[in-house]
Amino acid sequence: MIKVAVVGASGYTGVELLRLLLNHPEVTVTCVTANQNAGEEVATLFPSLAGRIDMVCTALDVATVAASADLVFTALPHQAAMAVIPGLLAAGCRVVDLSADYRLRDPKVYAAWYDTHTSPELLSEAVYGLPELYRAAIPAARLIANPGCYPTSVALALAPLLKGGWIDPATLIIDSKSGTSGAGRAAKVGSLYCEVNEGFKAYGVGNHRHTPEIEQTLSELAGQEVMVSFTPHLLPVNRGILSTCYASLKQETTTDALLQHYRSFYAGEAFVRICSAGELPNIAYVRGANYCDIGLVVDPRTGRVIVVSAIDNLVKGAAGQAIQNMNLLLGLPETRGLEVVSLFP
Amino acid sequence: MIKVAVVGASGYTGVELLRLLLNHPEVTVTCVTANQNAGEEVATLFPSLAGRIDMVCTALDVATVAASADLVFTALPHQAAMAVIPGLLAAGCRVVDLSADYRLRDPKVYAAWYDTHTSPELLSEAVYGLPELYRAAIPAARLIANPGCYPTSVALALAPLLKGGWIDPATLIIDSKSGTSGAGRAAKVGSLYCEVNEGFKAYGVGNHRHTPEIEQTLSELAGQEVMVSFTPHLLPVNRGILSTCYASLKQETTTDALLQHYRSFYAGEAFVRICSAGELPNIAYVRGANYCDIGLVVDPRTGRVIVVSAIDNLVKGAAGQAIQNMNLLLGLPETRGLEVVSLFP
Amino acid sequence: MIKVAVVGASGYTGVELLRLLLNHPEVTVTCVTANQNAGEEVATLFPSLAGRIDMVCTALDVATVAASADLVFTALPHQAAMAVIPGLLAAGCRVVDLSADYRLRDPKVYAAWYDTHTSPELLSEAVYGLPELYRAAIPAARLIANPGCYPTSVALALAPLLKGGWIDPATLIIDSKSGTSGAGRAAKVGSLYCEVNEGFKAYGVGNHRHTPEIEQTLSELAGQEVMVSFTPHLLPVNRGILSTCYASLKQETTTDALLQHYRSFYAGEAFVRICSAGELPNIAYVRGANYCDIGLVVDPRTGRVIVVSAIDNLVKGAAGQAIQNMNLLLGLPETRGLEVVSLFP
Amino acid sequence: MIKVAVVGASGYTGVELLRLLLNHPEVTVTCVTANQNAGEEVATLFPSLAGRIDMVCTALDVATVAASADLVFTALPHQAAMAVIPGLLAAGCRVVDLSADYRLRDPKVYAAWYDTHTSPELLSEAVYGLPELYRAAIPAARLIANPGCYPTSVALALAPLLKGGWIDPATLIIDSKSGTSGAGRAAKVGSLYCEVNEGFKAYGVGNHRHTPEIEQTLSELAGQEVMVSFTPHLLPVNRGILSTCYASLKQETTTDALLQHYRSFYAGEAFVRICSAGELPNIAYVRGANYCDIGLVVDPRTGRVIVVSAIDNLVKGAAGQAIQNMNLLLGLPETRGLEVVSLFP
Repeated sequence: MIKVAVVGASGYTGVELLRLLLNHPEVTVTCVTANQNAGEEVATLFPSLAGRIDMVCTALDVATVAASADLVFTALPHQAAMAVIPGLLAAGCRVVDLSADYRLRDPKVYAAWYDTHTSPELLSEAVYGLPELYRAAIPAARLIANPGCYPTSVALALAPLLKGGWIDPATLIIDSKSGTSGAGRAAKVGSLYCEVNEGFKAYGVGNHRHTPEIEQTLSELAGQEVMVSFTPHLLPVNRGILSTCYASLKQETTTDALLQHYRSFYAGEAFVRICSAGELPNIAYVRGANYCDIGLVVDPRTGRVIVVSAIDNLVKGAAGQAIQNMNLLLGLPETRGLEVVSLFP
Repeated sequence: MIKVAVVGASGYTGVELLRLLLNHPEVTVTCVTANQNAGEEVATLFPSLAGRIDMVCTALDVATVAASADLVFTALPHQAAMAVIPGLLAAGCRVVDLSADYRLRDPKVYAAWYDTHTSPELLSEAVYGLPELYRAAIPAARLIANPGCYPTSVALALAPLLKGGWIDPATLIIDSKSGTSGAGRAAKVGSLYCEVNEGFKAYGVGNHRHTPEIEQTLSELAGQEVMVSFTPHLLPVNRGILSTCYASLKQETTTDALLQHYRSFYAGEAFVRICSAGELPNIAYVRGANYCDIGLVVDPRTGRVIVVSAIDNLVKGAAGQAIQNMNLLLGLPETRGLEVVSLFP
Repeated sequence: MIKVAVVGASGYTGVELLRLLLNHPEVTVTCVTANQNAGEEVATLFPSLAGRIDMVCTALDVATVAASADLVFTALPHQAAMAVIPGLLAAGCRVVDLSADYRLRDPKVYAAWYDTHTSPELLSEAVYGLPELYRAAIPAARLIANPGCYPTSVALALAPLLKGGWIDPATLIIDSKSGTSGAGRAAKVGSLYCEVNEGFKAYGVGNHRHTPEIEQTLSELAGQEVMVSFTPHLLPVNRGILSTCYASLKQETTTDALLQHYRSFYAGEAFVRICSAGELPNIAYVRGANYCDIGLVVDPRTGRVIVVSAIDNLVKGAAGQAIQNMNLLLGLPETRGLEVVSLFP
Repeated sequence: MIKVAVVGASGYTGVELLRLLLNHPEVTVTCVTANQNAGEEVATLFPSLAGRIDMVCTALDVATVAASADLVFTALPHQAAMAVIPGLLAAGCRVVDLSADYRLRDPKVYAAWYDTHTSPELLSEAVYGLPELYRAAIPAARLIANPGCYPTSVALALAPLLKGGWIDPATLIIDSKSGTSGAGRAAKVGSLYCEVNEGFKAYGVGNHRHTPEIEQTLSELAGQEVMVSFTPHLLPVNRGILSTCYASLKQETTTDALLQHYRSFYAGEAFVRICSAGELPNIAYVRGANYCDIGLVVDPRTGRVIVVSAIDNLVKGAAGQAIQNMNLLLGLPETRGLEVVSLFP
């Protein structure tokens, strides 16, 4: 059994990591840190885990974490992650970081959208952990930058189009909608039940921090600089991201032809499901599972293609993908511990 | 008191018309038809109305309706509406039709998206009842085509840009999200609670029937043929439509400058509220009220403007706008009976 | 126009008072206090009110409030209310207090369930503002203790049984379920969307602070000391309380006979609606309106009666009832400003 | 691999059986029947299962089912189940029946609450499959009557009290609340999203068909005839049942003492979790998992105990318990395939 730690476990990503790790046959959780809840039973913090874990949350101490685990999941806010990850690496741990701190390759871009980076030397070493697109680099990595939830949904939706040169990247518009767990477990008025329920709004229009991460990946896929309009919205559901992507086609094609291209592109991928023509994804069908469902429509009237992707933001958009990366790091089958079927309804 | 009838009252638009009409000081509801529920108390069909209405649903009979009312709201499905409206007009009634049957001016377009039109001669007479854009023509009309819910949210969001020539209409992309009452009260598996709750999906991509209605209005505003990508989505809420609209600006401008233009454009309008810079609409803030809230962001990175509008699909998107039209038809103050404040939370 | 102030307006009760007062034809809101939001536009704090109110929140100052208003609604937490109400009364204001501070007649009971009372001399003067049961005493009062949300739903459900001596009060069990707005607008983890949505739980079992208020009213109705089991639950909805009440009948009777008794008991009451036999209340049918819907079933198998009542906790359970009390205080028709029809769906 | 069939798979219980069976390491699904969807891909009927099952729904034919499977799950409506189960048994299958048809031991009781029983001779053979209470009889059974969802939540909540003689059974009141999946996937107006969302109601008061099933089990536990008041309510959530049970204690005791008794009573049970004092269950913590969480409070004021239990109605209340029974029938570890951790949030 491989020993793993979850650092910063008090949020929704933390409990989701634990849910999936507790069912993983090859690992054992040896350390759970949560500074605000240090000394508290994990099963008191998250009664959903009662009967499955008999551990107490500890305050974060790098040496203790490193001594207890071979592989560490960091589920801390950005800036907090970069404060501990260099120490964990120095102590010999491998790290899957779920924050944004090591996703952007250019420290100047990080500084422009977040803050000054305190370990920029690690940016070139960190591997962007989107296995369907960057699988080869993952097994040998020390530090995995686990992708953001929105960027995962967008990159998988658009990769086949950009790689194939099907669309004009300058026309890309991405309208995304996320469940509320994406806003975290912090006690904020804007996240209260009565503020979110029966409501719907856009936020971060033109300035959401996932924009440069999306553009970095899309640019690499396109082989040219790509700039997008990206608009996130807050959905009154617990889980799920649906991204609706628009782009002008460079040549005439059909829905069927593009679907066939997507099926080829993702052939052999366990976690990407391409919808049949006439069908489109629904976040209800990926709940709790590591899938990315993708559907599309070619609109001959406007010459555009509309691609829709759905993921569970806590699974393929965070904890599930982190475990997929862990499996690759450890040489395990990529689907190990992630065979869970979507929960519907 | 003016006598009004509600024809086809068994759906959500019907109960919303009754909710608003029962609070209107100048009208009295004299006839409520609902073929499937003929003989049933209205307050049994809709217990929310108990104590406020003491009427029985009747089967639809044009002569009876015409004899009992001066003004008729038809809340029937398309095709069913055109089967009775010519008779109501012939009998001397004025009609506010909430179906799609008289919204498209060109019968060939109607035939392409719906079915053969059986009273095409009325299409040129019917007035498209979006008061903020077509107010002058309404008071003298016999037949008002009450706009669709999506088209209302889109036309009000984009009119100031198109009239002012600010954007390139060829780049228009409209991503809309509607609450489930828009799907009606028919018993369909796809509208069941467990199918919709905690779910989210796009539907009708590239072929939703509101597309030609949207394009007709936008074309008139732009003074040129406009074709758009319009993608509706199903939101797990009872009420509300949020439309997120994207277009490329023809010249550089700022969020503040465009907001100022919107405020001028809609100066004096009681039902349009323009958000301050940095604020954006939320369907939660228009629930139950006749407002259309509009906010926008100019994104200098991409040269696009993103406009977001929010309405209650059953009020400004249906019954409230129908009563606004009625007020204009009757020479009443336009806000009469529509002073209701939004219900939050 | 009568000048009214809303003190402590930043919560859900505050915005609901404003929603209803802004539609009331006889009053004008002259002062809105919210200490945490002093200096902020009311319409920024609650965008649902945009276009309807052009006031700024002020910090609470008793002299300023008293100078600006004849009647004051205090929507403060308990203990905070009693800190300002004596001063408002001394300054000549009449007060409708929505806190729990003046509901219990016995300061020892208040101390046992809340804390030490700092103005116990006002407890005997305060009138418990449940008009259907205590109407006569209201018009002459200086200080109205507006009832709690749960106690309103329970007292109206059980009054006809207790007054008529139909049930054994020792067998009373009250199982109540409340929407989340009852938990207030404070930023607490337990009130977050993801904690409440798709969840359901009991809380405060055996020790909820509404218990002594319920028992005080039921005891007065029964003419004997009544002690109940009262269990509140948290519903994943914004608004609504449904109380399911169980008691053993002292004599055989039928559902029809008891319903007839209820109709007689509440004859002439504008805000109590008795369901037909076979029908039961649903919180969906009172949303936004001041109704209390009541239904019941006599179960001959067990000899018990089950009474179910539904209110909107923010309307009949708080702000609506406060305005009903205000109307009585001011000699206005009791329904003035409260004619709003329930919002369904 | 053991071959199993799911008969009547088009409902929510069907898809839940498939979700769990597809993750079960010892069985393979060889036959899926759904008369209304015969010829349709299972993954089209339930896109949540895409990529996990490559089968087509067939029309129900007893001989075909029996030829393809050793063990059959029947997820049919009552009456439909009894039409096929005798044939399946005669063909040598073992059957876990999720309908109500074989739960009541007395055909006269079945006739009184349902309809005439057409195979009453099987009632004495059928084993009531609530393993925590009737485990010994299950392994040798041919026909398991899988318990109802409400009865499961109630029997587990009350068994320790009734077996220990702690309470007066004549005082038992059970107030239950169920998620909407319990109403099935049939297209009915009452199950539409807009009818259920933001609503809450009681139904079947005094006459719900689960009442005799509850009373049968409680009577066996108490060793005397037990009659209860049972009131179900409809919760606006997809999944979950919370039952709040009230009874008068026969002797003084404490919350701690009773919790200790519960822990002893359920010692070794993998699927029953007893809350700590001061904690109570929430349906959010059992979502997707086979747990029954139980908490309780002794109220010394009233001399009553309030017991609260939570299950997922589709798992421990249906498909999960059915697989627990299957494991016992097959001699497998009882938790095999049911190790899934609750999905929160």
